[in-house]
Amino acid sequence: MIREKIKQFVEKDSFQKFIITLIIFNSITIGMETSDAIMTSFGNVLLLIDKIILAIFVLEITLKLYAYGFSFFKSGWNAFDFSIVAIALLPASGSLAVLRSLRIFRSLRLIKNLPKLRFIVESLLLSLPSIGWIFVLLTLVFYVFSVIGTKLFGSSYPEWFGTLWASMFSLFQIMTLEGWADIARTISDRYPFANVYFISFILIASYTTLNIFIAIVVNTMSEIQQKISIQETSKIESIIQDENEELRNDIRNLKEQIIKLEEKISKRISSP
Amino acid sequence: MIREKIKQFVEKDSFQKFIITLIIFNSITIGMETSDAIMTSFGNVLLLIDKIILAIFVLEITLKLYAYGFSFFKSGWNAFDFSIVAIALLPASGSLAVLRSLRIFRSLRLIKNLPKLRFIVESLLLSLPSIGWIFVLLTLVFYVFSVIGTKLFGSSYPEWFGTLWASMFSLFQIMTLEGWADIARTISDRYPFANVYFISFILIASYTTLNIFIAIVVNTMSEIQQKISIQETSKIESIIQDENEELRNDIRNLKEQIIKLEEKISKRISSP
Amino acid sequence: MIREKIKQFVEKDSFQKFIITLIIFNSITIGMETSDAIMTSFGNVLLLIDKIILAIFVLEITLKLYAYGFSFFKSGWNAFDFSIVAIALLPASGSLAVLRSLRIFRSLRLIKNLPKLRFIVESLLLSLPSIGWIFVLLTLVFYVFSVIGTKLFGSSYPEWFGTLWASMFSLFQIMTLEGWADIARTISDRYPFANVYFISFILIASYTTLNIFIAIVVNTMSEIQQKISIQETSKIESIIQDENEELRNDIRNLKEQIIKLEEKISKRISSP
Amino acid sequence: MIREKIKQFVEKDSFQKFIITLIIFNSITIGMETSDAIMTSFGNVLLLIDKIILAIFVLEITLKLYAYGFSFFKSGWNAFDFSIVAIALLPASGSLAVLRSLRIFRSLRLIKNLPKLRFIVESLLLSLPSIGWIFVLLTLVFYVFSVIGTKLFGSSYPEWFGTLWASMFSLFQIMTLEGWADIARTISDRYPFANVYFISFILIASYTTLNIFIAIVVNTMSEIQQKISIQETSKIESIIQDENEELRNDIRNLKEQIIKLEEKISKRISSP
Repeated sequence: MIREKIKQFVEKDSFQKFIITLIIFNSITIGMETSDAIMTSFGNVLLLIDKIILAIFVLEITLKLYAYGFSFFKSGWNAFDFSIVAIALLPASGSLAVLRSLRIFRSLRLIKNLPKLRFIVESLLLSLPSIGWIFVLLTLVFYVFSVIGTKLFGSSYPEWFGTLWASMFSLFQIMTLEGWADIARTISDRYPFANVYFISFILIASYTTLNIFIAIVVNTMSEIQQKISIQETSKIESIIQDENEELRNDIRNLKEQIIKLEEKISKRISSP
Repeated sequence: MIREKIKQFVEKDSFQKFIITLIIFNSITIGMETSDAIMTSFGNVLLLIDKIILAIFVLEITLKLYAYGFSFFKSGWNAFDFSIVAIALLPASGSLAVLRSLRIFRSLRLIKNLPKLRFIVESLLLSLPSIGWIFVLLTLVFYVFSVIGTKLFGSSYPEWFGTLWASMFSLFQIMTLEGWADIARTISDRYPFANVYFISFILIASYTTLNIFIAIVVNTMSEIQQKISIQETSKIESIIQDENEELRNDIRNLKEQIIKLEEKISKRISSP
Repeated sequence: MIREKIKQFVEKDSFQKFIITLIIFNSITIGMETSDAIMTSFGNVLLLIDKIILAIFVLEITLKLYAYGFSFFKSGWNAFDFSIVAIALLPASGSLAVLRSLRIFRSLRLIKNLPKLRFIVESLLLSLPSIGWIFVLLTLVFYVFSVIGTKLFGSSYPEWFGTLWASMFSLFQIMTLEGWADIARTISDRYPFANVYFISFILIASYTTLNIFIAIVVNTMSEIQQKISIQETSKIESIIQDENEELRNDIRNLKEQIIKLEEKISKRISSP
Repeated sequence: MIREKIKQFVEKDSFQKFIITLIIFNSITIGMETSDAIMTSFGNVLLLIDKIILAIFVLEITLKLYAYGFSFFKSGWNAFDFSIVAIALLPASGSLAVLRSLRIFRSLRLIKNLPKLRFIVESLLLSLPSIGWIFVLLTLVFYVFSVIGTKLFGSSYPEWFGTLWASMFSLFQIMTLEGWADIARTISDRYPFANVYFISFILIASYTTLNIFIAIVVNTMSEIQQKISIQETSKIESIIQDENEELRNDIRNLKEQIIKLEEKISKRISSP
């Protein structure tokens, strides 16, 4: 069957290496497009190469789609691959020029195609749920402080606290501790109690963020410890079993001794 | 009894979900109040909704107070709930406008009503005692450096070190490493030894803060390890018991063998 | 003996609590001295109180010195106590005004006198040796980059890299990541290769500092694990001993059975 | 053989201490050369000392090369030593003045010659592979964001995003959180969506960097735990063996008892 042959073809090691090479090569050519000097001399060549590589990617995805059918989309990574290539096919003229710059997302296909990278990204994503609720808490803290900030300082300092979004951005900036003292000193000149607002936000936000970090470390470590503990338990189990096997052998030995004794006695006693 | 019925009503799953929905909805409307555009068009509606929701919250707390009596306040979370709603009932005109902005604290009721959030906040609070004394130490360091800073630099740089509070704020800023170099360079132009003051403060404060963090990680990890260790020990214990049970069976078997032998001998010997 | 009585007196719980109260009270009065307003009204009172408290501290140390003799200085904490009080006795007029501000160091006596604080400070100091050699490495990195920085950028940017000390201060500032980009952008306008210098310094310094932190966490954790592991081993040992005690009982039982059998046989056989 | 004697000489403890002393002394003299005041008075002396020490280093390396032959280069540290000394021999006039400043790299020979420092640097280098692929991922993220940044903001803000290198430097700056808010606020005045770009970069870069750190902690910890677990297992094994040795003794004892019984029976029965 042709479908089977295409499947074998796209799963070939050499085909995958070819695609990886193309992704890296394409990343470089897209990077080179950012240089005006290079674009003036080789612009046409670079754009041509880009079109050819895109064509190959489209062909690759089409082949895979044909080979696997709808089960292709069962893997999140395949859907990821598909949408990245699909973005590149959108018309990118005029106001959609931003979309053109997203072509570089094709480099991210490396993550799917290099198993080591995929493993790391998967484990990064897997540790997200463990911090999910802390993140909800942080969002709540952000929201509450944003509303308070907007109401209190919004009219006097519209650049920082004019709208809810401006406040959230400012609070994010303050959480990164970047330039927070300038903002706090300026505002507390007018509202003396503002320092309480800023310092309590920094303390709460830092402590919560710190706990996001701790949650990840502790989760990862406790999983590893569980594994080590299970290994250890099973090792000790086999040691105990081996040792007791010897003991049981000794006891069996003893039993045979007794049986022999019994037979002897039986014989001797019955003999006379 | 009516008290019992109210208890059952406020503990109903659907009632709690209704309250959670109201809290989220109220948070959104309070957030919308920060936008002038929205307030011009829908201000009256938003304020009406706010009053209705507040009335429901007051009713909720009243019902609970009636149902549980004074034991309602035994739970810290209930007291927290009560005071948040109580704040909203204070008259908020004139100089108390700040209090009005605290209405958004009602969003924090989510923490009490969503078990997962409550669990996280509780564990955040529980890890506070383990860092309590390090915090006392940090306060002491802050106080000592504040007094020195105020005495040495206060007259020349009143904005940064004019009063004890100004010094503490500046030292907090320096601890967050935000703009510390500007302050240190400015002051050390006049007092060359000031660098010693700033660098030693940064080193001591960072090292102490670092240890706050380490204290939390180590405490959490060692608790988990204790649990894993206890699990492992009890697993190994049951393995040992199982194995020894077999051994004891073997020995019991042996014993029966000997008893049989004894009987045999007894019979045979006594028979002739 | 009078020496013995003084010893008992200074070791009394009430005496120690009195000293702790005095230290805290003195810290507050020294803090109040930083306020000009308070000094104008109550300056004389505060200075009088300070002199009285100092006199009591001097008396306290003198009593302890008499009671313990030279063995008083065997404890590092006593020497610490002694030198803090001694500083306050230095004449503090004129150019030694800085020394006067060091009177607040008396607050640090709290560390010696509150066992919990002393424990924390001791454990902070104890984890220093484990990071000692990483610190030497960091110093070496600082020195090498300082010399290079001074030679390369010293003549053009004397404020940042004019002398070896200026370079070290700038590198410390860059290590804290405070304002490093301004310095790097300014200098790399003139020396394009400067970015390599700054980025490599940041990477090396961050990675080394990170490892200081990791060294502390890992050391503390592995000590705790050793303890937990020893506990677990001894618990498992006692479980094994208990279990085997039972086995040995069974075996002893068996032995008695055999001995009884032997006696029986002996009797019966010998009887006829 | 002379080669053997030279080997013994360069491996002597006193010779190595002499070299370490020379390295430290040379580091200090090179440091002193940064001071114009010192250079005016003692410049000739310092430069003479430097030439003499360099001559000794060259002699040292030559002796070692003669003693060990090409196997000298098998150790990475020897190659490191060799290249540092070799740099100093390059002509350093004119445009190569930069190279002269690299003479201070000789201080790094301390790392090779002080075992404790060498151990730390080796363990720092050994933990690099464990973060290798996270680093590749971070590079990919940097590259993708650089290309997007250059394409979107390059024409309007050439200083920050003019070329791919400028973008990478700016992103590195943003990753260190230094002055990121200024850049983000300036650019988002013109491109409102820029905040999405900056905040998503900060979140992704921080989360990935955080995981570099976590990877090191977890790797180091899990190695230590493996060791502790193996120790514990072997201790428990020996406890079990000791205990079972006793049991086996008891059983052997029992066996002898039975054998004695058997003999007795045999004798008595056969006797009459």
